[in-house]
Amino acid sequence: MTKTLIFGHKSPDTDTICSALVYADLKNALGVDAKPARLGEVNAETQFALDHFGAEAPEYVERVDDEIDNVILVDHNEFQQSVDNISDVRITEVIDHHKVSNFETKEPLYFRAEPVGCTATILNKIFKENEVIVSKENAGLMLSAIISDSLLLKSPTCTAEDREAAHELAEIAGVDLETYGLEMLKAGADLSDQTALDLVTMDAKEFTMGDANVQIAQVNAVDTNQVYASQDSIEKEIEKLINDKNLDLFLFVVTDILENDSDVLAMGQAKDNVEKAFDVKLDDRNRALLKGVVSRKKQIVTNLSEQF
Amino acid sequence: MTKTLIFGHKSPDTDTICSALVYADLKNALGVDAKPARLGEVNAETQFALDHFGAEAPEYVERVDDEIDNVILVDHNEFQQSVDNISDVRITEVIDHHKVSNFETKEPLYFRAEPVGCTATILNKIFKENEVIVSKENAGLMLSAIISDSLLLKSPTCTAEDREAAHELAEIAGVDLETYGLEMLKAGADLSDQTALDLVTMDAKEFTMGDANVQIAQVNAVDTNQVYASQDSIEKEIEKLINDKNLDLFLFVVTDILENDSDVLAMGQAKDNVEKAFDVKLDDRNRALLKGVVSRKKQIVTNLSEQF
Repeated sequence: MTKTLIFGHKSPDTDTICSALVYADLKNALGVDAKPARLGEVNAETQFALDHFGAEAPEYVERVDDEIDNVILVDHNEFQQSVDNISDVRITEVIDHHKVSNFETKEPLYFRAEPVGCTATILNKIFKENEVIVSKENAGLMLSAIISDSLLLKSPTCTAEDREAAHELAEIAGVDLETYGLEMLKAGADLSDQTALDLVTMDAKEFTMGDANVQIAQVNAVDTNQVYASQDSIEKEIEKLINDKNLDLFLFVVTDILENDSDVLAMGQAKDNVEKAFDVKLDDRNRALLKGVVSRKKQIVTNLSEQF
Repeated sequence: MTKTLIFGHKSPDTDTICSALVYADLKNALGVDAKPARLGEVNAETQFALDHFGAEAPEYVERVDDEIDNVILVDHNEFQQSVDNISDVRITEVIDHHKVSNFETKEPLYFRAEPVGCTATILNKIFKENEVIVSKENAGLMLSAIISDSLLLKSPTCTAEDREAAHELAEIAGVDLETYGLEMLKAGADLSDQTALDLVTMDAKEFTMGDANVQIAQVNAVDTNQVYASQDSIEKEIEKLINDKNLDLFLFVVTDILENDSDVLAMGQAKDNVEKAFDVKLDDRNRALLKGVVSRKKQIVTNLSEQF
């Protein structure tokens, strides 16, 4: 039987982890020998969701082993966000909701990207298309992914389809959407145990914009000032990353989940592009408040890409 | 209302033209202001299909006008096969059945590629998903696309889904699959009116393989020797193309639709790769018979790509 490995992006978030788990379960129900994997540490928000619905985190992999025949990517398609040996493996499927970039295959594949707020929203449709019943656990995991990606349905990336799926899945999972959602987000926003290195790497993604290498890290917080209490240490970690990875820009985004704003820190030789992209001035500590900005994908990457 | 333009690849074939027409019709039924377009001349096979089902060829466009807000790509995704100003337009959808390569967007989109033999097979599913009735004309056009891409269901690219769709659509279109199919293929294989330049450009696609620029042109024929009666002129046209486009390899593929073989002519500094990829020797006129090879996508591009 063909072995298939299913995983999301590096610096995994709740959608990436839950979508890998749920899609592997669906594939198994359809008779495919698939197993989920993760490319990094499980964050506190995701761990809360896993614990709440009695699920275990998928196995960590550093690279795809030779015994694996096929891989399925969920929640990403850009190779620089994927496993290191992605260019050497056979990708048979992609289920994603991001822009398409730096992705290619030698053969035709099943590639399904939709402009919705969350991969799990697409997975919920695939369950229906295949007439497979959604279990309580899978409903809870997909719900958690949608809450996470949409900041409890408040992000501009959230579509009518995401909202509908969230309400439907909350019912199957047997939880109150608002209550569970805020609890989960707060679990993720508890950054008290995180080191500066954790903060700048826990949900970081790399992008190629024009000729520039850009890394954007995002954390959710209830109190952004508490995060920046350690700004000196954060800056040191970012400086190291800029040097190690030859980055033109590192943007550290601290999103206030109650106010729905982001307090960002921009470093690197291309930091002026942040000022231009969002029509703000960085203060003397290289920070700026981006009012109403909560979505890396829809508000930050799009605007920054145009600037480069 | 947002204007959307729908088109397939350059050197259009029957799937590209028919899918653009049919998908525009479906979009209109769904309330989207979409119109079909083509990026090149309609070939004899496609014209036969259009005439048979009373359809008109879509309008020719050289580039996407400023008044167009969105474009939808059918039957291709690689930018070098698309309209010249593809990098400047907003792509909102892709419906395709090819490998993904040299494609990128700034924003999330609806990207649907499936490893089936024909774009029209996917469109037939989209009609069902949206509960829109397939008209006799649209059924005929989608059927023609499937027959064309699958060489009457004989190509190795043809999947069970393509076969099922073809039989279903033949019934709606009111034609006998075998009879109509052979008539249509023969109309396309009548190359008597074509100049050497026509032959090498009528269904030519460019590919980037490793660092090499490769162009692969394919024609269907009932008698391959008749095509090669003008090999001298064909070679001259290919030489010009190699120089103009700085190609490393030009592969001219003449597919015998009755025998299901291909008689190929390889030119350019990388022509040795053809010998290695297919384990054949090019004769003193740079030709070789590839037994059982009829599919550019599944048999030729895949094998050649590995060689480069």
